[in-house]
Amino acid sequence: MTIDFFTSQSQELSDQKWMNFAFFEAEKALEKEEVPIGCVIVRQNRIIAKAHNLVQTLKDPTAHAEILAITSACNHLQSKILDEATLYVTLEPCSMCVGALVLSKIKRLVFAAKDTKTGACGGMVDLLNHEKFNHKIEVSSGISEEKCSQIIKDFFKQKREN
Amino acid sequence: MTIDFFTSQSQELSDQKWMNFAFFEAEKALEKEEVPIGCVIVRQNRIIAKAHNLVQTLKDPTAHAEILAITSACNHLQSKILDEATLYVTLEPCSMCVGALVLSKIKRLVFAAKDTKTGACGGMVDLLNHEKFNHKIEVSSGISEEKCSQIIKDFFKQKREN
Repeated sequence: MTIDFFTSQSQELSDQKWMNFAFFEAEKALEKEEVPIGCVIVRQNRIIAKAHNLVQTLKDPTAHAEILAITSACNHLQSKILDEATLYVTLEPCSMCVGALVLSKIKRLVFAAKDTKTGACGGMVDLLNHEKFNHKIEVSSGISEEKCSQIIKDFFKQKREN
Repeated sequence: MTIDFFTSQSQELSDQKWMNFAFFEAEKALEKEEVPIGCVIVRQNRIIAKAHNLVQTLKDPTAHAEILAITSACNHLQSKILDEATLYVTLEPCSMCVGALVLSKIKRLVFAAKDTKTGACGGMVDLLNHEKFNHKIEVSSGISEEKCSQIIKDFFKQKREN
């Protein structure tokens, strides 16, 4: 029990640390006037890929932070499989990104804020727990939720005002 | 009624023609020992993007024909929106690709063979008709179904034998 407690405490601290890096990526997106969403992929306690939303900059609807990070991580590992890795992202992934995560066979997903509009981890639809997906991803959510949610709310508020 | 009949006949002939180009792309994938899936994106009666599955070649689980073609079409148009375009693909798109199609606001999707393992247009899951998606795509299926299904079956049969 004591060991479990410390393991879980240390996991939380480490999740917090990596989510901060994902948040730095969201801030980079904001500087480019993109919806501020960022992510990092961590393997063996090291970041192997980081990316932020570039949909407007690249004029590409597939250029979500998660897709860019998965491509980058696979390129780094020279493998299409990310089974020892965890993806940290500031907003609940959409259907496209959850589909990509399942295809990559990623081990774990940690997201900060819920997305009731397009989230595919229960926010709008629950794809992750679909019985027919042949890969199950461990999921944690809520780490740095307020901060990651607020930066997006502020972005859209400012857009409406301008 | 007569006009409707001819419109639908001409639509079918034109769908058949574009699906043949998608099939040529699938054959290109086969030459590279990739799962033979191909697609084209058509707008104003012209192909604006074509692509085939490159998952093994690029070691990238996101390198499905549809994702590559969407990125290419958007780059060609310098727009993240494909609302006047139709995507033709030889196999029912998966969750990742249906998610990307919705994000691109593509007008129409035509696919050949059903995919009961990972298809997200009713094969495994029906994402396209999810009530909360804010974009509805017109869908046709079954054009060149046997040919597009057979090339994939043959590919996996040969893989098992080797």
